[in-house]
Order: sequence, then C-alpha cells, then structure tokens
Amino acid sequence: MARIGLTGLGTMGAALAMNIAEKGFPIAVHNRTGSVTDDLMRHAGDLAATMTPTDSLAALAARVDSPRTVIIMVAAGDPVDQVIGGLVPHLDPGDCIVDAGNADFNDTRRRSAALAGKGIAFLGMGVSGGEEGARHGPSIMVGGPQDAWDRIADIVTAIAARYEGEPCAARLGADGAGHFVKTVHNGIEYADMQVLAEVTGLMRADGRAPADLAPVFRDWNDGPLKGYLVEITAEILATSDTDTGKPILDVILDSAGQKGTGRWTVIEALKLGQSATAIEAAVAARAISAQVSTRAAGEAAFPGQSEAPGLDDATLHDAVLAARVLGYGQGFSLLQAASEAFDWSVDLARVAEIWRAGCIIRSALLDDIATAIRDGLPEGQLFLAPSFADTLRATTPALRRTVARATETGQPVPAMSAALSWFDAMRRARGTADLIQAQRDFFGRHGFQRTDRDGKGFHGPWAGPGA
Amino acid sequence: MARIGLTGLGTMGAALAMNIAEKGFPIAVHNRTGSVTDDLMRHAGDLAATMTPTDSLAALAARVDSPRTVIIMVAAGDPVDQVIGGLVPHLDPGDCIVDAGNADFNDTRRRSAALAGKGIAFLGMGVSGGEEGARHGPSIMVGGPQDAWDRIADIVTAIAARYEGEPCAARLGADGAGHFVKTVHNGIEYADMQVLAEVTGLMRADGRAPADLAPVFRDWNDGPLKGYLVEITAEILATSDTDTGKPILDVILDSAGQKGTGRWTVIEALKLGQSATAIEAAVAARAISAQVSTRAAGEAAFPGQSEAPGLDDATLHDAVLAARVLGYGQGFSLLQAASEAFDWSVDLARVAEIWRAGCIIRSALLDDIATAIRDGLPEGQLFLAPSFADTLRATTPALRRTVARATETGQPVPAMSAALSWFDAMRRARGTADLIQAQRDFFGRHGFQRTDRDGKGFHGPWAGPGA
Repeated sequence: MARIGLTGLGTMGAALAMNIAEKGFPIAVHNRTGSVTDDLMRHAGDLAATMTPTDSLAALAARVDSPRTVIIMVAAGDPVDQVIGGLVPHLDPGDCIVDAGNADFNDTRRRSAALAGKGIAFLGMGVSGGEEGARHGPSIMVGGPQDAWDRIADIVTAIAARYEGEPCAARLGADGAGHFVKTVHNGIEYADMQVLAEVTGLMRADGRAPADLAPVFRDWNDGPLKGYLVEITAEILATSDTDTGKPILDVILDSAGQKGTGRWTVIEALKLGQSATAIEAAVAARAISAQVSTRAAGEAAFPGQSEAPGLDDATLHDAVLAARVLGYGQGFSLLQAASEAFDWSVDLARVAEIWRAGCIIRSALLDDIATAIRDGLPEGQLFLAPSFADTLRATTPALRRTVARATETGQPVPAMSAALSWFDAMRRARGTADLIQAQRDFFGRHGFQRTDRDGKGFHGPWAGPGA
Repeated sequence: MARIGLTGLGTMGAALAMNIAEKGFPIAVHNRTGSVTDDLMRHAGDLAATMTPTDSLAALAARVDSPRTVIIMVAAGDPVDQVIGGLVPHLDPGDCIVDAGNADFNDTRRRSAALAGKGIAFLGMGVSGGEEGARHGPSIMVGGPQDAWDRIADIVTAIAARYEGEPCAARLGADGAGHFVKTVHNGIEYADMQVLAEVTGLMRADGRAPADLAPVFRDWNDGPLKGYLVEITAEILATSDTDTGKPILDVILDSAGQKGTGRWTVIEALKLGQSATAIEAAVAARAISAQVSTRAAGEAAFPGQSEAPGLDDATLHDAVLAARVLGYGQGFSLLQAASEAFDWSVDLARVAEIWRAGCIIRSALLDDIATAIRDGLPEGQLFLAPSFADTLRATTPALRRTVARATETGQPVPAMSAALSWFDAMRRARGTADLIQAQRDFFGRHGFQRTDRDGKGFHGPWAGPGA
C-alpha cells in the first residue's frame, strides 16, 4: 500500500511523483492515458520500486493507505472538476484530495466547500519552480484544513526546496490561501520579468549586443539583485541559436504568452480595491506584445520619436532594484488584503521565507522582506519598512532618471514607469483626486469628504447640473 | 392605462419618469417605499397628469398596456434580482423588463437568459448623464431583443439627448451589449477625469491658484478638447467654498470613490486579453487616493524628489489631447473585442454618435471618432486612423515632454504615462518580449515562436533546467 496517490503524470505530475518516491514515500500513480504511466515507470529507474502504477482511479484509491491522500496534477479549470468527480466515488469520508495545479483560488474555495459537504478534505497546493523544481525541490504553498495538512506535512516538507536547511513549504491558511499566494507569486514574477525585459531593451537600444550584456547581469547576480530571474537572464543573453548562430533573443518572436495567473492577480487586486500597478503593467505588456501586426502598422505610422537612451549600468541596476522592491511591495499588500478579506490569517513573513528557494522569483531580497515583515510593516507597507525605505531613498533617483530618459527617447518602460508613479503617488499626503471628487459631485451629486471637518456627503455650490 | 411602467423612484428613476411623462407618454410609477412615490407626484406639477402612481408591483403591472414594458431603476446587484422576482408573477409572456441601472453586463446576460425561459424579454439599458441627463436628455445604450426594443424605441429616442437633432439612443446588440457599452463609457470617463486631474496637478505644482487655471480650461473648451469634463473642470476651478471662501478644491479631501464600472471595465479588458492601460491607471489612481494615511506616512518617509514642472499651457493642452485620443482608442478596442467575443455586432460608429451628447464623456472628439470608424480603422485601431494618426503625430511629442518632465520632478501622472507607454509599445514592430519568452522557455519549457520560420513550440538550447 502507498502513503499517497497522484493522478496526472504530465511534466509536472511525473516530476512531483518521482520527487516523492525519491524521498522514500511509497506512491501510487495514475494517468488517464495508461501509456503515460508505463513511460514514467520505464524511465523511473530505481524509483520504480517505490511507485505503484494503477490503471484507473478506482485502482489508485484502492492502493493508497486509509485515510487516503490523492494529489491531482492536471490542467487548471474543468479537468480538475472532472478528475474530482471521477475520484470521489472511490473515496471515503476523512480522505483528502490535493490539487497541486495552478488553480484559480476561487475554484479552490468552491471545491473545498463542495467536498467538505461529503466529508472529504481538500488542499489547494501551489507548486512553483517549473519541472526542475517539481523534481528536485519546489516552493510549496498550501491552503486547506489543518488536520489534512498535518497528515501529509512530512511528505510535502521532504520534497520541498530548502533555504539554509529550512523547507520552503507551508500551510498558509484555509481553502484558497495556497493557490492565492501562488497566483500572487506569479503576478510578482510577471512584474519582475517585465522590468528585466525593459532594462534589457534600454541597453539594446544603445546598440549593445546580447552577449555583451550577459556579464552585466552576471555581475548584478552577485549583489542585491541576486536571484533566479537575473541569473537566467544572464544565461539567455549569452546563448546563441544552434541553427543560425545568432543571439537566441534575435530569433525569438517578441510575443509573450500567458496562462492566466498574472491576469488573475490583477483581477483579484481590482476586486479588493488594491493598486498592483507594476503587475498590471506587466500583464498589459504581454497583451501588447501579442499584437504583432498592429505594432508593425504602428511603427510604419509613427516613425521617429526614438533615440538611444544612453543610461549607464549603475543607474539601470538601481532602477531595477527600486522597481523590484516596489513590485514585491504591491504583491505583499495584495496578499495582506486578501488574507483579511477571506479570513486566512496568512503569515506574510512565512510566505517570503518559503519563496527564498525553489520558486521562480527566489531572490536575495526575500530574506530581507521576511525580516522586515517580522519587524512589523508601518501601515502594512513594505516600502515604508525602515530597511526598504533606505533602499528606495538610495535607488528611486536612478529609477526616476531611467523612466524620464526612456520616456524622452521613446522607449516604453511601462512596469518601471508604473512602479515609479505608484511610489510618487504614495509619498504625497495631498494628491490630485480632489478634482475627481469635485467632478463626481458636480455631475452625479456623489458627495465628498472635506479636509477641514469630519463627515461625508458634502456638496459643492455648483451652479450647474449637480446643484 | 399607461404605455410603460417604472419602479425605483430614486434620483435617477424619478428624473427618467418625469422625462418620459414630459414627452407625452403615459407612465405608471412605483417605489417600494410609497412615500417616495407620493413625493414625486407632489413635485411633478403638470407632469402628474401623465403619471399614474401605484402602490405595489401588482398594481404597477395592472396599469400598463399589454404587452407590458416595465423599467427597473434600482441599485445594481441583488436589488435588481429582487425586483425582477417580485415583478415576474404579475407579468405575462411577451412582456418586457428594462433594467436601466448600472448593471454588470454579466448579470444582464444571466437575467436575459433566465427571463427568456419564461417568455419575458429583458433589455439592459445603460443611461449616462447623471440626474440632469436622465431628466432632460441622457445618452442611452440598449442591449436585448430587437422586437422588445422596437416596441419602446419611440419612447427611448424621445427622452434621449440630441446631437444636431439626432437622438443619442440606440440598440447596440443582444443581451448585455448596452450595459457593456455603458461600462466602457465609464471606463473612458475614469481615464479622462484622471488625465484632467493629473494636468491640473502639474499646473498647481507650479504654484498657480485654481481660479487662475479656470480660464485655461475655458479656453481649451473652445478647441479640440471641447467637452463636458473640460467644461466642468473650468467651473470647478473657478468655484470657491461657500463657508471658508477658499478654492473649493482645497477643502475637498483627495480620496476618490468608485462605484464599480471603472473596475469592471478593467476586469473585462483583462479577461478579453486587452490592454486598456490608461483606464487601468485611472482605476488604480482612485485606489491609491483612498489610502490617505499611508500617503501621509509616505510623504514623511520620502521628502524631496519633487520640483515645479514648469510646463507651458500649450504643451499641456496637447498632452491632454494625445492622452484622450489614446484612452478613447483603448476603450473602442475593448468594445470591439467584446462585440466579437459575445457576438453582439456592435456598430462602434453608432456608439461614438450616441456619446456625442447627453453623457459625461461627450466631447468634440466623438464626432471625429464616428467618422473615422465609418471610414474603417486600420487594424481596428483608432490610433492608426489617418485623422487621429495626424493628431497623435502632432501631440505625442507634447505628451512625451509632459510625462518626462513630470517624472523628473516627482509628479505622478500615471494615466498620461500609461497612455504614452502604450503608444510607444504599439509603434514598435520589435518589442522586448523576446526576453520574456526566453525566460518562460528556460524555466517552464513553454516554447516560443521564431522570427525566421513558421510554427510554435521552439525551444532554446538552454544548459539549465529548461534543457
């Protein structure tokens, strides 16, 4: 009998199953198409001894110790509901289903409630780190009932990445908490990737070849920008296409795909009244990138207005650091807002800690973020934490020079620009929304608050329609 | 017997009822709280003769000619479902319910389908223009069955605003089309209001008093920026607070409210893979404005980095014009995408035409937009239409100077900045998303397209995890 079951042996599911087997936990595996299971067993080598292939969901359930835990790793959306529907008849009250895919946390909440009605626990488990991570140590973000987590915590912590010996896995709250944190992880990832694309674009607009930029990013990866995305950017810049010998970037179409998590992050931020502007800009930039023919027509219609920005590497370094701090800050604010709205009590410092290794956004900054959160964030804001405020005082002037120069020279830097606008708006006790409130009251009698007395619903002495 | 019924006699409902009565259509009216109905009848003067008060939904239905049409004007959301639930038992197949509130078009689609099952038609009717518009001539955007529209088209066109004699009302497509168009109208309104707030902020950062700025906006209202929002901005700038004698703007708290339509616009844009970045920035700016205490803490933590921008009025004028064209363009692209996704066949030129009077964003630009759309938009994009491309070639240099200078001087201009970033990204045949695709392939084997051959799913020769 196996300690745990897993159905869905695609790239990620197979990697996760082998990781579990390698850590010594007997696992029963299943895939809808049986030949995929056979392939996995053939390629599993010594690990095959710890893995039990099964050819149906009934057989899978029959081979797992009771109370059972079965992991689902299939494409997000309907396939998850279908597998749950197929699995439930073979489970008993007290069993647990774990969805390890990239689910929309709203679906996870719905499924949790539906399965709870049948006495079956449901864990929503976000897994970050790609195939490599799933195989050798991902960052794992879990939401769901405490007792269901307790039963598999030994397995999950064993397969997770480690940061200075500490496993990068945690239960972060009830129902959708894990999938929500994973979604925001990906949102931050979108912003970070976009900022790196923007800064690389500025460098290349100066006529510098990709291979000449690789050492700059390698150098950055030795300092406060150290992290997986900077590291792989250096590798990518140094890579040539095998067929043509050209820089690999020059043969890749500049049309970025997206699978939904960035978009979900922004939609949830909007629903919660948050302003995750750097993430928004990054999601929009991908949508713009996909409009290849429109951009070609745009270039033909609007030539000129572009020059070499000529920014030095030290300025760009600090600009990226400032934008990264601001983007992470927006992500953590969103997590805090969701934690309150859904009553999850997410330990944000723990989130930063389990992101320190295994996941795509792992970076030197996260250890500092964990410390800053444990010390207490003023107004719940990372950008106001003393250590990060110091960093921002030192680096935002470079971000400002970069955005201003990019703007002058016609180089779009939407995520850096959004991050800086957010920073500039957030450091103004008195902004410009007084005019917006006046307009709303003028045309719709919406009312406003006053600066000089308490209360709401004041109106202006408009002679016009609002009077 | 009345030609039409209306329930929900709040500010907007009462104004609409009086408008209908004034145009000579007998109308039966109802409100859940009967005293509100009594008040309306008392204040209706001569119009009372054309209005029949009723004290229940049953009585309302009984007083309307068959097949009946009953307008609902209550707060969006659950109240609409409750009123529909209360009304349906008193209706017959072939009758029609009109929701004239600011509904989420997804709700309108759901209600349309549910009522169609009972043989009752449902029209989703967006009404813009505030109380004044509802009373004397709003812009009216309708979605729903053609035959239900045909039965009330005479009433709706009679009460609508007129632009050079032409009524600003139209059926734009099936089910949610009208409410969707109204939502996007409001999204564009958010962007336009934010741009005006930003430019006013830049002027005030030069130490200019509101009253001194009013003539500038009055002057702008005589040229290509002519429109309701510029007009009322001039009036607001010239207005003093009755109690304190200060400029009214100085006593209004800079914390902007929002009722959902701006947010919905952005959420739908995201779902449709669109990039309505200027609207996004405007929605985010309202969220930021609401964080009053955090902004005060931000100002204390980050003093400096702010100077007077010193931009001349001609530059700012052109910057606003460019940002407005780009914001409208994003809105119309979104309408086009939704029209295709929901099979509405929305006549976008007609939308521009019915926005020329009555609604909040009415402006000189809309007549030109209607003409450009009728002439055919290259790539479906307003910014590529010959007349608007000319405008943008003339004005984007000013937008660029404005955003660059605002950035240098620490003045947040998120909507103008987002509009310019979008423009700069949309006029680059070759953007920077090649790096993003390389990163996605590196860590997740997502694959990319190549610039030099057809097909998908190419991979880089990564030595790392993606290999």
